[in-house]
Amino acid sequence: MNGSSFGSIFQVSTWGESHGKALGVVVDGCPAGINLTEKDFESAMARRRPGQTKYVTPRAEQDQVEILSGVFEGRTTGTPISLVIRNTSQKSGDYSEIAHIYRPGHADYTFDAKYGFRDYRGGGRSSGRETASRVAAGVVAGKFLEELGIATTAYVKQIGPCECVNGVYSKDGTVSDEAEEKTRTGFVPSREMIEKSPLRMPDPDASARAEEYLSELMKQGDSAGGIIECIVTGVPAGVGDPVFGKLDALLGHALFSIGAVKGVEIGAGFSVAGMNGSTDNDAFSSSGIKLTNNSGGILGGISDGDDIVIRAAFKPTPSISKPQQTVTDKGEEITIEVRGRHDPVIVPRAVVVVESMVNLVLTDRLLVGMSAQMDRIKAFYKN
Amino acid sequence: MNGSSFGSIFQVSTWGESHGKALGVVVDGCPAGINLTEKDFESAMARRRPGQTKYVTPRAEQDQVEILSGVFEGRTTGTPISLVIRNTSQKSGDYSEIAHIYRPGHADYTFDAKYGFRDYRGGGRSSGRETASRVAAGVVAGKFLEELGIATTAYVKQIGPCECVNGVYSKDGTVSDEAEEKTRTGFVPSREMIEKSPLRMPDPDASARAEEYLSELMKQGDSAGGIIECIVTGVPAGVGDPVFGKLDALLGHALFSIGAVKGVEIGAGFSVAGMNGSTDNDAFSSSGIKLTNNSGGILGGISDGDDIVIRAAFKPTPSISKPQQTVTDKGEEITIEVRGRHDPVIVPRAVVVVESMVNLVLTDRLLVGMSAQMDRIKAFYKN
Amino acid sequence: MNGSSFGSIFQVSTWGESHGKALGVVVDGCPAGINLTEKDFESAMARRRPGQTKYVTPRAEQDQVEILSGVFEGRTTGTPISLVIRNTSQKSGDYSEIAHIYRPGHADYTFDAKYGFRDYRGGGRSSGRETASRVAAGVVAGKFLEELGIATTAYVKQIGPCECVNGVYSKDGTVSDEAEEKTRTGFVPSREMIEKSPLRMPDPDASARAEEYLSELMKQGDSAGGIIECIVTGVPAGVGDPVFGKLDALLGHALFSIGAVKGVEIGAGFSVAGMNGSTDNDAFSSSGIKLTNNSGGILGGISDGDDIVIRAAFKPTPSISKPQQTVTDKGEEITIEVRGRHDPVIVPRAVVVVESMVNLVLTDRLLVGMSAQMDRIKAFYKN
Amino acid sequence: MNGSSFGSIFQVSTWGESHGKALGVVVDGCPAGINLTEKDFESAMARRRPGQTKYVTPRAEQDQVEILSGVFEGRTTGTPISLVIRNTSQKSGDYSEIAHIYRPGHADYTFDAKYGFRDYRGGGRSSGRETASRVAAGVVAGKFLEELGIATTAYVKQIGPCECVNGVYSKDGTVSDEAEEKTRTGFVPSREMIEKSPLRMPDPDASARAEEYLSELMKQGDSAGGIIECIVTGVPAGVGDPVFGKLDALLGHALFSIGAVKGVEIGAGFSVAGMNGSTDNDAFSSSGIKLTNNSGGILGGISDGDDIVIRAAFKPTPSISKPQQTVTDKGEEITIEVRGRHDPVIVPRAVVVVESMVNLVLTDRLLVGMSAQMDRIKAFYKN
Repeated sequence: MNGSSFGSIFQVSTWGESHGKALGVVVDGCPAGINLTEKDFESAMARRRPGQTKYVTPRAEQDQVEILSGVFEGRTTGTPISLVIRNTSQKSGDYSEIAHIYRPGHADYTFDAKYGFRDYRGGGRSSGRETASRVAAGVVAGKFLEELGIATTAYVKQIGPCECVNGVYSKDGTVSDEAEEKTRTGFVPSREMIEKSPLRMPDPDASARAEEYLSELMKQGDSAGGIIECIVTGVPAGVGDPVFGKLDALLGHALFSIGAVKGVEIGAGFSVAGMNGSTDNDAFSSSGIKLTNNSGGILGGISDGDDIVIRAAFKPTPSISKPQQTVTDKGEEITIEVRGRHDPVIVPRAVVVVESMVNLVLTDRLLVGMSAQMDRIKAFYKN
Repeated sequence: MNGSSFGSIFQVSTWGESHGKALGVVVDGCPAGINLTEKDFESAMARRRPGQTKYVTPRAEQDQVEILSGVFEGRTTGTPISLVIRNTSQKSGDYSEIAHIYRPGHADYTFDAKYGFRDYRGGGRSSGRETASRVAAGVVAGKFLEELGIATTAYVKQIGPCECVNGVYSKDGTVSDEAEEKTRTGFVPSREMIEKSPLRMPDPDASARAEEYLSELMKQGDSAGGIIECIVTGVPAGVGDPVFGKLDALLGHALFSIGAVKGVEIGAGFSVAGMNGSTDNDAFSSSGIKLTNNSGGILGGISDGDDIVIRAAFKPTPSISKPQQTVTDKGEEITIEVRGRHDPVIVPRAVVVVESMVNLVLTDRLLVGMSAQMDRIKAFYKN
Repeated sequence: MNGSSFGSIFQVSTWGESHGKALGVVVDGCPAGINLTEKDFESAMARRRPGQTKYVTPRAEQDQVEILSGVFEGRTTGTPISLVIRNTSQKSGDYSEIAHIYRPGHADYTFDAKYGFRDYRGGGRSSGRETASRVAAGVVAGKFLEELGIATTAYVKQIGPCECVNGVYSKDGTVSDEAEEKTRTGFVPSREMIEKSPLRMPDPDASARAEEYLSELMKQGDSAGGIIECIVTGVPAGVGDPVFGKLDALLGHALFSIGAVKGVEIGAGFSVAGMNGSTDNDAFSSSGIKLTNNSGGILGGISDGDDIVIRAAFKPTPSISKPQQTVTDKGEEITIEVRGRHDPVIVPRAVVVVESMVNLVLTDRLLVGMSAQMDRIKAFYKN
Repeated sequence: MNGSSFGSIFQVSTWGESHGKALGVVVDGCPAGINLTEKDFESAMARRRPGQTKYVTPRAEQDQVEILSGVFEGRTTGTPISLVIRNTSQKSGDYSEIAHIYRPGHADYTFDAKYGFRDYRGGGRSSGRETASRVAAGVVAGKFLEELGIATTAYVKQIGPCECVNGVYSKDGTVSDEAEEKTRTGFVPSREMIEKSPLRMPDPDASARAEEYLSELMKQGDSAGGIIECIVTGVPAGVGDPVFGKLDALLGHALFSIGAVKGVEIGAGFSVAGMNGSTDNDAFSSSGIKLTNNSGGILGGISDGDDIVIRAAFKPTPSISKPQQTVTDKGEEITIEVRGRHDPVIVPRAVVVVESMVNLVLTDRLLVGMSAQMDRIKAFYKN
């Protein structure tokens, strides 16, 4: 594995640079017979697209997905689905001044160290723009999961010091703690509540405070980090594999592969360090559901039938206009102020990227998981 | 990938159950010419072995590694190295009573859901005993890394509420903050300081408090969680791949594949959510070293030449003797008290497992990374 | 992939050298619930074992397979099955004289070129003895295929100039051309007819002539090549993948991975070069079966429901006692006469190796193939 | 692996159907720093392109390769290279009549069996047109190999009964047997001699006879099969891996993955069945070269420094206008005459496809092979 492919049965291979002609992804191993049109990509791509609000870069990309193969008469054929997104608004001129500078927090230095040189325009392959390909692939996976009644929802849980309180949000903005009974570590906000907030924070109060916080940072030419939580409902028990193929290991891999992620936790996450076995263990009940969900829906790497709950911490956008100390590729110290079109916070746009990566993992493991039991295989081939 | 193999060039495949005849691992893709004897495994295996202190299970396993292939006249031959560890102290009788019970916090239920039945003796394949194979493989990787001047050190940073303070520990137990200058997120304790503590906490004060804390828990038949930090020195800049092959993504995969891990963070980790770009970005200096190391040694998924710093949160041992509510495989509710030989805390024994997994990732990526530049490949083949 | 693993879902990893302590294989991804005991391996291992007749090396190995993991209470658990075969009759002394000589037709020179040195005892990893591990893995695959009604039969079609005539052989040694109607390229001899011949040639006449031919060669210290044909019945249509995952591509890979194979052909094979579309194309009939089987049961890389027919050409055993010119690892020219225990012809023992490799491919592709159609996946998960 | 990806380090993923919008390939793992422009693809694409002579389909495709990513300022960047070839001359109307008919010798039936339905236009994914993507990828691999002094040459050895005689061809059409001294199984014709013949047969006499033969077949609405031989010079000894990663196994996989291939042989190939050890074994000489090359340049799966010689047998084009018996997808028997634009023989256009597949294997194994020896790895990282 070189880095641009992911998955074993449902395998995606992304390609493309921030300022190249196009980006795209080849989705191989998608089952035949799933309805798929170019229209299916619009909503997800729009959620990732720049230029949505004042909190995201104004770069104007339509991010239109073109299907070049693998779909015939509106259905997937089982052969590779090639998806292409043309870059229409790249402005290479913006970047020429950083061709020989290593921007702090970026991959400029490490790409040079690895490859000897780099496509410096907008971060090249290391640009967040690469995630457009993942979202396109995630849409295909999402269509697959939908057929099995599985739904993935991510939202912004925290930006800087502003955090959504746990609970279930109703449309009128009130919050109840129903979810507490079941899931100490998460809750499932509706897509509607999430999209109501320009920051994708379903807690209206937290969202408002975060808007203020960001406005202040933008004046200072600075940026903020945040946390995204993702909840998956409808995953049957028994998905995932022991040892290195654990569902949590693959989800961890998936989320850490998103550029700015510096931490990932599942279920009770880091708080388990301070817990005891008697408080962390989720009791099984005869209703077939655990009384708590500290496990985050995964035990021994295999889904336990409960909601899967996972969180990722994103670092602040490294491109800031505040002066920073750094060096050139000749080792000379200089001060830079990164100009151009940058997001003061990345998490609102990353919500759909997190969902996409989670979808890729689940789709793949559901397909791999079909071969776990001889009896079921026999029944499959007898039909 | 089914779950029991890891790595692309340096590929390990582990096998074995807690109470089977043996456990083991096949290491394929190890370069030829590395000195390796059965003695090389002793120190690492001893660090993971049960029965070391009163804080670990007394199960008496020698965990002797036998080399069955891939080594000739004391050197690796480049062909698969088969390592076997015989189980000598399994007592299946201990486990018969849980054959039809789903223990909270364990994989009993999920294995049944996936496979239709399970080897219930001591957790079977989902037992922590499986990590013995990983440690054996990690020793081989460690020998490889040693030849390149790379050293991996993990230690227990936290048990329950007892946390090592950041700093550099000297033999006399004093702590200075030298490390602060370079690494806000970690420090490098000596192996000597770590091994001095029965809990592998190099901060003598934290270690003493944790011992008290655990003694109290053991009386109650309860268990504790904790955090392990791992620091790798000597990794050259340029190791790792973009996108899905990011070094952090592979490290995340590796650590989340350890049974009890519920959270992983790199560098500044979850604290980045509350930071700003201006404080999180590590300035590059002309000395070739970053002024801070919030990146944890990885930028854009590729090593930046700095120490790699990674942490994992481990849940409390789920096997506790306190009564717990659960169900049988027939769905009947019952109360169980898990008997047998269990660790009140798993982190001290997991330290070497974390090191091993990190070693596996780095070895693989160093080998894969040789093919990044045409010029260097040409030079390689001209020699 | 480094070379010692094969398969994507049903993945085997072999290890071991000719004169090491043991050989073995880890079978990962085998479905749970298949009955498997150590006794199941005996018949297949016996067919590959040395010392069966005067035409094979007298090295006395019992080739007893020990199951170390992955089987519980007589059934596979879905976790890795570790199989070990102890070497009991290695005589390293026999080989010391060739430590510094490159035997013609062997891998001595190429292993040194690749790895810098080699385990020279009996060919080390390049020894045909490595195939014992494959046969053990093939037994597991065979048990899987048996559950689906699929049977694999290989036999020796040709040794030197002595060739079985096409047809169907009855117990009394007569031959009819019934098979001609269906399969111009092959026929299905019974296991009984095959095992009757010490050379595994079901045509008694050809077998007798081949015995004479070999006796003569043995007097001269020389060896013979041959051809093995393998027929698989019961494979449903639709197994295999387009492009690089073609069933024929994987079968070709599998058979060429057997040491002495220099040619592989499927169905009409090399004779297609001289045929025309009108004679090579197999007409489809309304009975659901093709009128001929030049395709060898595979069209476009996917099984067509007909018998799969594949052949492999094996070179003569390179170890001969006739004097040969060669060089030492210092480049000095010398003449050698290879002594020790060698087979004058390898094909009789390779029959079961061919079957095993074919079984591995089919098992893997049957498992991978479960994810081809959304409707069937949905039905699978709804049950 | 689902079928559309190939290689482990140098990994290609092809996509596209005969009558879709486009075809293409993602080349991941290509080293950085190789000069590459769209012009580099022209010559190879032209050799595969339809419409070259009267012996190939007149479908008018320009087969222009567009580079969408992975190249910056004329050099590869080490990130995925996305190559796209637009379909410009597809005429879907031509194919509507075969939407419900299973053409003999084609994959229509097997695709339906696997996927439940198919893109029937021109064979969809199973069309020979898919090989355009492979040739594009092969060009990138060829540029890599060129830097290491490795050259791959394929030519048509046989069409129907017309076969090139072994030897070395000079421009004036005479043939000498110089090559016999070194390579009993092959010879290296110049690209010039090959391209002089419209059938890519460097033996002018054989080429002329084959032209006559084909003209006659075309009148009858029939087609011919053939054999392509491929010779690779300059491969250093030591490339390839033992067991399943054998160079011959991977080459066999690669060539059998080309649609019409029914047989593959290496070096002396199928003739080894009739040879003896004393005649088949290639003697090593002190000059560092073997006296013969029955091995075809590979011993024990690893290159021996000699020319690699491999042959593939291609079946006759299954699309013929002669009436053929077959069935519809409802099982009704009918007679069809396949109309449209088809090649009477496929081998002349397949020559460059064979070269491409061989290049892909060699490039991948040269990269994988860098990690074989600890000393060389150490030297690599010390530089």
